Amino acid sequence: MSYKFQPGMLYRMPTHFGPALGLRQGPDGRSFAPDTRECTAWSVSFLTNQEQLEKLLPEGMEVRGEPVVTVEAKYMTNIKWLAGRGYNVLGVSFPAVFNGKVDHVAGSFLLVMWESLFDPIMTGREEIGWSKIYAEIPQPRTYNGETHCTANWLGFKFVDLKVNNLRQVSLEEFAASQGKQTDDGILHYKYIPKTGEWGEADVAYATLTPPWLHQVTQEVWEGEGTVEFHQATWEDLPTQVSIVNAFQALEIKEYRGAKMIKTIEGDDIRNQRILH
Amino acid sequence: MSYKFQPGMLYRMPTHFGPALGLRQGPDGRSFAPDTRECTAWSVSFLTNQEQLEKLLPEGMEVRGEPVVTVEAKYMTNIKWLAGRGYNVLGVSFPAVFNGKVDHVAGSFLLVMWESLFDPIMTGREEIGWSKIYAEIPQPRTYNGETHCTANWLGFKFVDLKVNNLRQVSLEEFAASQGKQTDDGILHYKYIPKTGEWGEADVAYATLTPPWLHQVTQEVWEGEGTVEFHQATWEDLPTQVSIVNAFQALEIKEYRGAKMIKTIEGDDIRNQRILH
Amino acid sequence: MSYKFQPGMLYRMPTHFGPALGLRQGPDGRSFAPDTRECTAWSVSFLTNQEQLEKLLPEGMEVRGEPVVTVEAKYMTNIKWLAGRGYNVLGVSFPAVFNGKVDHVAGSFLLVMWESLFDPIMTGREEIGWSKIYAEIPQPRTYNGETHCTANWLGFKFVDLKVNNLRQVSLEEFAASQGKQTDDGILHYKYIPKTGEWGEADVAYATLTPPWLHQVTQEVWEGEGTVEFHQATWEDLPTQVSIVNAFQALEIKEYRGAKMIKTIEGDDIRNQRILH
Amino acid sequence: MSYKFQPGMLYRMPTHFGPALGLRQGPDGRSFAPDTRECTAWSVSFLTNQEQLEKLLPEGMEVRGEPVVTVEAKYMTNIKWLAGRGYNVLGVSFPAVFNGKVDHVAGSFLLVMWESLFDPIMTGREEIGWSKIYAEIPQPRTYNGETHCTANWLGFKFVDLKVNNLRQVSLEEFAASQGKQTDDGILHYKYIPKTGEWGEADVAYATLTPPWLHQVTQEVWEGEGTVEFHQATWEDLPTQVSIVNAFQALEIKEYRGAKMIKTIEGDDIRNQRILH
Repeated sequence: MSYKFQPGMLYRMPTHFGPALGLRQGPDGRSFAPDTRECTAWSVSFLTNQEQLEKLLPEGMEVRGEPVVTVEAKYMTNIKWLAGRGYNVLGVSFPAVFNGKVDHVAGSFLLVMWESLFDPIMTGREEIGWSKIYAEIPQPRTYNGETHCTANWLGFKFVDLKVNNLRQVSLEEFAASQGKQTDDGILHYKYIPKTGEWGEADVAYATLTPPWLHQVTQEVWEGEGTVEFHQATWEDLPTQVSIVNAFQALEIKEYRGAKMIKTIEGDDIRNQRILH
Repeated sequence: MSYKFQPGMLYRMPTHFGPALGLRQGPDGRSFAPDTRECTAWSVSFLTNQEQLEKLLPEGMEVRGEPVVTVEAKYMTNIKWLAGRGYNVLGVSFPAVFNGKVDHVAGSFLLVMWESLFDPIMTGREEIGWSKIYAEIPQPRTYNGETHCTANWLGFKFVDLKVNNLRQVSLEEFAASQGKQTDDGILHYKYIPKTGEWGEADVAYATLTPPWLHQVTQEVWEGEGTVEFHQATWEDLPTQVSIVNAFQALEIKEYRGAKMIKTIEGDDIRNQRILH
Repeated sequence: MSYKFQPGMLYRMPTHFGPALGLRQGPDGRSFAPDTRECTAWSVSFLTNQEQLEKLLPEGMEVRGEPVVTVEAKYMTNIKWLAGRGYNVLGVSFPAVFNGKVDHVAGSFLLVMWESLFDPIMTGREEIGWSKIYAEIPQPRTYNGETHCTANWLGFKFVDLKVNNLRQVSLEEFAASQGKQTDDGILHYKYIPKTGEWGEADVAYATLTPPWLHQVTQEVWEGEGTVEFHQATWEDLPTQVSIVNAFQALEIKEYRGAKMIKTIEGDDIRNQRILH
Repeated sequence: MSYKFQPGMLYRMPTHFGPALGLRQGPDGRSFAPDTRECTAWSVSFLTNQEQLEKLLPEGMEVRGEPVVTVEAKYMTNIKWLAGRGYNVLGVSFPAVFNGKVDHVAGSFLLVMWESLFDPIMTGREEIGWSKIYAEIPQPRTYNGETHCTANWLGFKFVDLKVNNLRQVSLEEFAASQGKQTDDGILHYKYIPKTGEWGEADVAYATLTPPWLHQVTQEVWEGEGTVEFHQATWEDLPTQVSIVNAFQALEIKEYRGAKMIKTIEGDDIRNQRILH
């Protein structure tokens, strides 16, 4: 008399109300891909200390090329699976490779992504293993030629990202600069603890997000910028203090430029896969 | 050169910054139990249609006794693992039994719990399998002898819970009424989808929260109340429409009273266990 | 030994900390005009009952031409006097004339403007007599070709404005259609009660906002739309119930189209003047 | 055909929808006094430099006795005129006298009061001349015996108030200590600029709030504390920078203790009067 799971359908807690609704599955199982969400992203890159990055890498991963960290704040509107609503994200990543028993891929390792809405955090963590956590990410403000992006947790502002001196780059020029890069996608490490057997895991594997299928770049601007994480106490950030302080401690050897990019995009990332 | 997991420590995504911080594990692994959080809860119960409840039960669970649903809104402050901050929750549950191959327990089945803060949702879902999801749950308001609790998702108010005609009950009287009940705890169903193999699960098992170890009841009030869930469209609640509409469709045969209870409490629920 | 007001400088409560900072006066008295704020506005117009509008007119004002009410939701970013921040507004107006002893002007009467930020409400009320009050005005959402704007007060959503079937109109065509209109600006009624003599006024006069000096229209789209105000109880909106219910009661004889307009704009409205 | 003001009724912008609703006037003109709102306040006092305070005094006012500033954060629930909702305030005051042509009163001068809700700010400024402005004032958090109160404007936290080592004081003891004080109430300076004649005022007079008529003290605790205002740039606080920086610059010669007080209270402050 209890319910049965419908085969082939994606579920999530609570499973009791039928197949889950989200980016990868709409009402009656329909798809939201390709999405036409409007995105504006400001990012800053810097060269850091390779040893510091290595200590943040799970087993099987290595730093790829120069240890250059990119912090990107992205503001999205008109998202289909949210019926046109938007949300904002702030991610920290660097180039890395994964060398498994089977898979050998070169991509960008996403250390953490703060997001301003619960729903994509939950679906991203549980379904595809993105290390998403919550932050309030207010709209950026632009004044006197400088755009200022921030994020905070319950009022503790833990990062300031500033971009200025932007000049527009033609899409051709941008495509050419990107074309030289080899990238298999975004690397993650999915982990779910085992209930009651503390220290054991129910899930522990690397995952890969293949390159975007649906992304139209509309504008690219290049300039300069800075990024500053603020040291926190445990009282300031009782669940995130170790994350923020690790970034605050990262050496900034030199800045490697900043970008502002406008895109129309949207994959449903059903092609996410486990790496072996 | 990559990091190693410290044995016996609880981890959560992102695992790259050391052991997770949360209710079950503080800085340097210290415990937050017993907590002395201050809680005030308003609840309303009603008799419903047994068949409707059965369709919400995962395999192995059955309705226990009369099909009486309780909706409880609880407001908490001074929580240790949040360095004294608070948050609010709204849960829907009913008496149920779990009959597994090994375990046979009688408790209360928690269908869903909305919570107003991301951190306890994430830890509750992944570590102990509680079906927590996000809602904004503003402070209740009391006017003319009636307390009014609500919850909304991005501005769509999906439930109104009202309690009135409260009279205080002595703690002895309350203890006597509770003493007759047998309860092994709170039942849950933990489920994590398997990345890339949509429809398959990484985790799928029932879990049990044993009775509270640390809970001091300070005041009990009994009275009357009503609870109303509001029908939503997919556009209103693109990830929760099926949950809210299932509750809106539940028949209310008769109300079974309302309560207001003040407690000082706080387990860390490390005794949560998998049911077999 | 107490402070003196600096002559010619604008002040506001608290006056104890020197000249006020705001849209009309920056640090060291500098001007923020012209601003280059980026605005997107969705509006819907409808023909209503003339008698209903007349009851909302203060002494000296009359309905001008057909009784057509326009409800406009406007979303603004990169505002100079807020150091690049933004805020949102939702206004209700209709064409009216003011016939005073001295002034005879034809414009648009702004019945009320909800705004999502305290600072422009305070400065707008006290300095220029705009009838601004607070509402939360979330970003609009666009899905399936329809844009949906809302406003709420502490969770009670009191208006839904929907616009669809938009087609772009050339700026020449738009300018031509506007050129036929005579408009002296926006009419308001400033009123401040006299402390302790309840029912008496410290300030009671009509004011006029002359036509914008700095407004560059970038895009104009025309289409269809609807607007619906939701009846409230006093408990829902204890300070705004009479306003919202008056709009809810307005007859909608027929809709007169909808618009979406993008502008770069920004006056400091120092040319606001009292009407006699 | 336009509307007429009803005699003896309190009005506020927009005046077009009938008499204003607020603390001093409910639906159909009914009173909300006495209110039974539940309040908890934490305050810290310190001895400062008399000359610094004098520069913050409007004409006719003088520092009374020692220059001791009190910063109080107060959290209120179950407020009648808001149909049971609550809000929070943070005020800064010191003892002062007003010597006018007619009135000579000794009280406490309220330099500024931040409030977390728009409605009481608007009514308080315009009706009774309190210098209220907006801030987000989250619930305080208590951890390890210390209560921490904060306030921020759009994410910029401008004050930290901390209270600890609290010991309860009997109400008799508290009443005895208060009984020795002479206090005619709270002093304010009401000011409304004149539209279009920048630098001129429509309203400029001192007002007095007589001692509370309805206030039942339930608990008094005394202890120690600190208060710290944080220096801001104009970009951080574009409308409040001069206020916050004036407090940040106040010398703290020595702390004069801290309090936590719980009260049930509520005047409607219709007895507010202009001082001459």
